[in-house]
Amino acid sequence: MRNKLFSRVAAYGRVRLVGTMPDKTKFISQKGTYPKGFLINGVSSGVKANAKKDLMVLFSPTPCNAAAVFTKNAFQAAPVQVSRNVLQGNGGTGIHAVVVNSGCANAVTGEGGIRDAKAIAKATEELTQLHKDSSAKKDNLPSTLLMSTGVIGQRPKLDKIKQGLAITLKDMGSSHQHWMRAAEAICTTDTFPKLLSKQVKMADRVYTVAGASKGAATLLGFFVTDAPIAPDAVQSILRHAITNSFNSISIDGDTSTNDTIAFLANGAAGGSEITSSSAEYEPIRDAITELAQDLAKLVVRDGEGATKFVTVQVRGAKSVQDAAIVASTISNSALVKTAFFGEDANWGRILCAVGYSGATVNPNATSVSFVPADGSETLKLLVNGEPQNIDETRASEILAQEELTVDIDLGSGSFEKTNWTCDFSYDYVRINADYRS
Amino acid sequence: MRNKLFSRVAAYGRVRLVGTMPDKTKFISQKGTYPKGFLINGVSSGVKANAKKDLMVLFSPTPCNAAAVFTKNAFQAAPVQVSRNVLQGNGGTGIHAVVVNSGCANAVTGEGGIRDAKAIAKATEELTQLHKDSSAKKDNLPSTLLMSTGVIGQRPKLDKIKQGLAITLKDMGSSHQHWMRAAEAICTTDTFPKLLSKQVKMADRVYTVAGASKGAATLLGFFVTDAPIAPDAVQSILRHAITNSFNSISIDGDTSTNDTIAFLANGAAGGSEITSSSAEYEPIRDAITELAQDLAKLVVRDGEGATKFVTVQVRGAKSVQDAAIVASTISNSALVKTAFFGEDANWGRILCAVGYSGATVNPNATSVSFVPADGSETLKLLVNGEPQNIDETRASEILAQEELTVDIDLGSGSFEKTNWTCDFSYDYVRINADYRS
Repeated sequence: MRNKLFSRVAAYGRVRLVGTMPDKTKFISQKGTYPKGFLINGVSSGVKANAKKDLMVLFSPTPCNAAAVFTKNAFQAAPVQVSRNVLQGNGGTGIHAVVVNSGCANAVTGEGGIRDAKAIAKATEELTQLHKDSSAKKDNLPSTLLMSTGVIGQRPKLDKIKQGLAITLKDMGSSHQHWMRAAEAICTTDTFPKLLSKQVKMADRVYTVAGASKGAATLLGFFVTDAPIAPDAVQSILRHAITNSFNSISIDGDTSTNDTIAFLANGAAGGSEITSSSAEYEPIRDAITELAQDLAKLVVRDGEGATKFVTVQVRGAKSVQDAAIVASTISNSALVKTAFFGEDANWGRILCAVGYSGATVNPNATSVSFVPADGSETLKLLVNGEPQNIDETRASEILAQEELTVDIDLGSGSFEKTNWTCDFSYDYVRINADYRS
Repeated sequence: MRNKLFSRVAAYGRVRLVGTMPDKTKFISQKGTYPKGFLINGVSSGVKANAKKDLMVLFSPTPCNAAAVFTKNAFQAAPVQVSRNVLQGNGGTGIHAVVVNSGCANAVTGEGGIRDAKAIAKATEELTQLHKDSSAKKDNLPSTLLMSTGVIGQRPKLDKIKQGLAITLKDMGSSHQHWMRAAEAICTTDTFPKLLSKQVKMADRVYTVAGASKGAATLLGFFVTDAPIAPDAVQSILRHAITNSFNSISIDGDTSTNDTIAFLANGAAGGSEITSSSAEYEPIRDAITELAQDLAKLVVRDGEGATKFVTVQVRGAKSVQDAAIVASTISNSALVKTAFFGEDANWGRILCAVGYSGATVNPNATSVSFVPADGSETLKLLVNGEPQNIDETRASEILAQEELTVDIDLGSGSFEKTNWTCDFSYDYVRINADYRS
């Protein structure tokens, strides 16, 4: 089949090499400051056919308060089911590790897949037992969260993963290089690792947050902090962060069997426990939300074959639901996304997507504009339902840029929603046409 | 902008010429028998930049009972609004003409666009007045249905269209060549005209049905018969035909501002009026439904860049809604469609789409199979949630064929739905990236 695929796909792939894909290496962080008390590493366990890194472990000797959001897909992968049970069983406390493997999704693998996932968690807990704080030694509850990404319907190669875990744990650390190896290990079709960190200065101390993510067909990510956040606050901060980040991006609208984002807080930086009523709550929540948003935007920038980063800004909606459905419908429209790739100011397709989104729309109150990334003047395409005479040269200049904001004013209310999406290029087809082979 | 686009797109386009696009000329009907009492023609009015045909008129001297289904998009194009009003004003009777222009959608053109559409209808009615039956002469109600397709936000060039109408009407006829010219005139990104006809033998006479359609970003079509069908029956037959044809296909899931399908019956073949209680009702309804389904399938076969024709057959659903949402979610999944283009037996993506469709799904009762077009043995991919060991060579053989049926058994009930879709190729991107330019 590979040969067949090669004949169908390779020619285009070669052309693409001389194409207009922007340089994305600029998004790779060159240094970072990472939260206290977390050890991390990523290696190649041999699960991926190539020699690429495919296994990472994040470990905290101190037990963490943790929360995670999981895919709503009816076919929940084994690691999703196991991780959800661990969090429920522990009441969102006592988490020590996050293990992510790439190359095998362990999805639609039945009871065997569940056993495999539990075996990976157990192996991690045995290998890390000695490294846990005395405070944690006595608790024998499961303390590992799992994420997997890769081909569906295949069981993970347990021996290779167990060997890989041992190798990974031998060389754990907290340097930028250690974090980068982990960020690389969770990638599949990603063209660059997505790793970010930042600090939040409080009155008496500094807290640090860091995280990594991968896209696009399957969305995985985690962010961690050394702030001492109470379990309920961990939950509410994660919900707030996700709503404004990973739930506001679109590559192709598909929702995988494995999508998972986890948030861990180990309190290693000290200070009194942060609850939703603490003065530190909002600053730390906003810092984590910003980090999550930046990680989500990197997933869009690295959308399969993406050559454009497009912000879809919907205003004047009658309800928050209307704003959200319009933003996501535009962000998912193949016709809109191919027009962006073609650098075609085809606002009709944007309007068309608004029209079939299902939102309450008043054609005579709807306006659409392009807001250039370079800060130059906004280009009005449609004003209160009236098409404007477009300066195509100007439109071309704006669309030639790597970033663009599409502003849609529904003129029907005061609700708004911003999504981030990318264009739909030949490489989206090439990458996804031969992914499994 | 064209040059810019050229540099982004043309290289791939050239590669595509040596690519694997199947020969679609085999779908062009070489002859046909057409309903009595309909005159038709298609010409180039100069609205399209190139010299391609872009205007057609279908005319019946005898007034027709007629019905139409229109896009649900909130931005209804001027011809949609005008045609709906004509049908409502006439109570679905007294229709003499259908005028379709391609190259300009006359959508999002405000009151001016409405005036333009009415002017095109009025010009048609004046030019055809003398040709109408004496029975029709006295009625001065609007009697023209309009359809437009092309770029959104541009007013139609009235002078060119009026000149075009005169030229078109000078050479009306009922030969296969006349019908083919009309079928060509409604095309935009279509690579071949979609024209079909068939006969229905009744006890005492033969009725003939014929129709044409175009896709894909905008869906237009009409079918006509010389059977004497009552207005209510025209309505119910159209609804039945659409549900089982144009509402069961997917190219990219977008719903345009102009989508319109019309059905006209002029009774020119004689016989007593056919109502829903007539013996002729079901035979004629089924013949028209079959014709509509074949026209809809041609739209899928000619989906922008389509190299595969895929039947998505959902069975065992808990409700008719579940069956429909699963079929349409799979049919619209970019990941599923790119896998078909790659000829990759990536059933995980099909299952994934089932899982996020929103339908009630029992993972352990779900089965997925590929049914080869050549009648050879079915390839089981997933049986009651258990992945099967796939013979990749066999899978490759099946996927290499131009047609394929994906069979999904949800194992949760007795409802089913069949949709038709196509793959997602480089050419989908190329065609839609530079459509407007």
